[in-house]
Amino acid sequence: MAEGDRQGAKGRDVDQMLDRIREGDRGALARAITLVESTLEADQEDARYLVEAAMASKPESLRIGITGIPGVGKSSFIEQLGLYLLSKGMKVAVLAVDPSSRISKGSILGDKTRMQELSRAADAFVRPSPAGNSLGGVARKTRECVSLCEAAGYPVVLIETVGVGQSETEVHGMTDFFLLLKIAGAGDELQGMKRGILEMADAIAINKADGANLPAAREAQAVFRQALHLFPPKPGGWQPEVLLCSSTEGSGFVEIWELIDRFRNQALESGTIERKRRQQNVGWLRRTIAEQLSEGFYEHPAVREAYPGLEKEVADQRISPFTAARRLLEAYAGTP
Amino acid sequence: MAEGDRQGAKGRDVDQMLDRIREGDRGALARAITLVESTLEADQEDARYLVEAAMASKPESLRIGITGIPGVGKSSFIEQLGLYLLSKGMKVAVLAVDPSSRISKGSILGDKTRMQELSRAADAFVRPSPAGNSLGGVARKTRECVSLCEAAGYPVVLIETVGVGQSETEVHGMTDFFLLLKIAGAGDELQGMKRGILEMADAIAINKADGANLPAAREAQAVFRQALHLFPPKPGGWQPEVLLCSSTEGSGFVEIWELIDRFRNQALESGTIERKRRQQNVGWLRRTIAEQLSEGFYEHPAVREAYPGLEKEVADQRISPFTAARRLLEAYAGTP
Repeated sequence: MAEGDRQGAKGRDVDQMLDRIREGDRGALARAITLVESTLEADQEDARYLVEAAMASKPESLRIGITGIPGVGKSSFIEQLGLYLLSKGMKVAVLAVDPSSRISKGSILGDKTRMQELSRAADAFVRPSPAGNSLGGVARKTRECVSLCEAAGYPVVLIETVGVGQSETEVHGMTDFFLLLKIAGAGDELQGMKRGILEMADAIAINKADGANLPAAREAQAVFRQALHLFPPKPGGWQPEVLLCSSTEGSGFVEIWELIDRFRNQALESGTIERKRRQQNVGWLRRTIAEQLSEGFYEHPAVREAYPGLEKEVADQRISPFTAARRLLEAYAGTP
Repeated sequence: MAEGDRQGAKGRDVDQMLDRIREGDRGALARAITLVESTLEADQEDARYLVEAAMASKPESLRIGITGIPGVGKSSFIEQLGLYLLSKGMKVAVLAVDPSSRISKGSILGDKTRMQELSRAADAFVRPSPAGNSLGGVARKTRECVSLCEAAGYPVVLIETVGVGQSETEVHGMTDFFLLLKIAGAGDELQGMKRGILEMADAIAINKADGANLPAAREAQAVFRQALHLFPPKPGGWQPEVLLCSSTEGSGFVEIWELIDRFRNQALESGTIERKRRQQNVGWLRRTIAEQLSEGFYEHPAVREAYPGLEKEVADQRISPFTAARRLLEAYAGTP
């Protein structure tokens, strides 16, 4: 795409906006993300232009996904990790994905306000993701925000997800390193854990490993270490590890970053990151197509009319799912 | 659908065929399955009529999926289990799904010929599934064959899968009870196991638990028992178990059937089977629609022309996956 003197749909100078983003102007980055989040077609057009240009600049960054159920202390953990990176002279961007909350209420705003120290730092950029209309939509927007953050020169992008619905899988599909945050429970650490989550983790950090919690945290560490060995090795031969940390004591972050850094070096050397990103990109392409096709189908008037009755007949085993599918596809195509 | 005196597309009397199937005529059942497997539209039309009618009769049966990698002795296991059921006065149907083999060669024919004793029994019906054109196709046809077997009055349908590609997931999505067959290894039983397979299992049977193998089999039993506890409980509160068996000694089959029977009673009482089947049916409907939409899209001339170049640009991170999807969907819809 050719760049230069492009006037945006609302008369915005999007090329100037792009220049400012590349200079690291946080206000410009925030405005660009607002365009990505907007549902107005004019804004979307500008957003696409900006995201394309941002992707084309192919900056090097490490994308880290962080997940954990409410109560494990994700916000404090991310703030501490972010502050540690700042102390090492690295800029850091934080994006939060929470499909269950609107921005104006719920935990996203809560998380944001709780990361006060990090938010105030000049070298950090903290931004919650919008709720969007669909899970796929949230993830897509977050993915585009990652590209904008990279164009703005953040060498590390932390993406937080609360683990509702498909959000973990989607965040896993846009990150290089996936960290699962846990706390020690009453010996039943693994019970009730979401299906597939353990297999996704490149590392597990047991948070709140301090004071009287320490013995339980060490026990949980042993349980998780054993559990991780049940799974096939990760691409590039990476063996996930389980570490302890405490956001209140600020302990464990040196070790966690050392581990992530070792992962990055190993993955860059073996080409794993490059390969993974290529696969992730093609995966997004195919999932987006599938979602859009599906949306077009289920929103078609003839399908909307026929679907509920046919679904019930299928559930009741009165007709075969394949016959019902055939009838619906015929209705969609407009043939009798 | 009204039944009665229906002449099939080739002048076959499909209602007579249906009557014969319901009378338990194995030849008629085999011919009906051949129609399901056929790719000719005329045959398919008759097949749809038969499958609809078969589904409408809603017979009670227990659908059992059996999976395991080559070498665990699936065929001998199924034959022994089948013979045990016959000895208890139950009829049994066996369907095998193997997307990696054509019927004329490979393991399906091998398996079939190996189940000689069971195949010869009057109360058993043994049939390999065709390779089909796609994985979805194989599974769909197998699913329809299950309905035909049920209409023929088999109270137990065993569905074998070799675990290639998506076949396990698909068989899991058409069965009430999913059994994973394993043999004892050198302490690394869980390494290299396919992702997600352990979570699907309602029970694990360690085969070849005889003679000098017995201590290793017991050890494997302990490892798997522990591993199964790592997962969330199954619908209806079912706790998967790990049993030992030996097809050569014929041991363990009483216990395995007792377990399956207990599962059935518990699931019937709690309504789990009914709920699961309703969900499975709707799942098939939605997957079939998604597959067909996808097939129509990727086979569209404009998409076929534009896709390879755009996929490469997406992989290389030259354009965003979302922009590429948009362009392809525009090409598909015929808009510029």
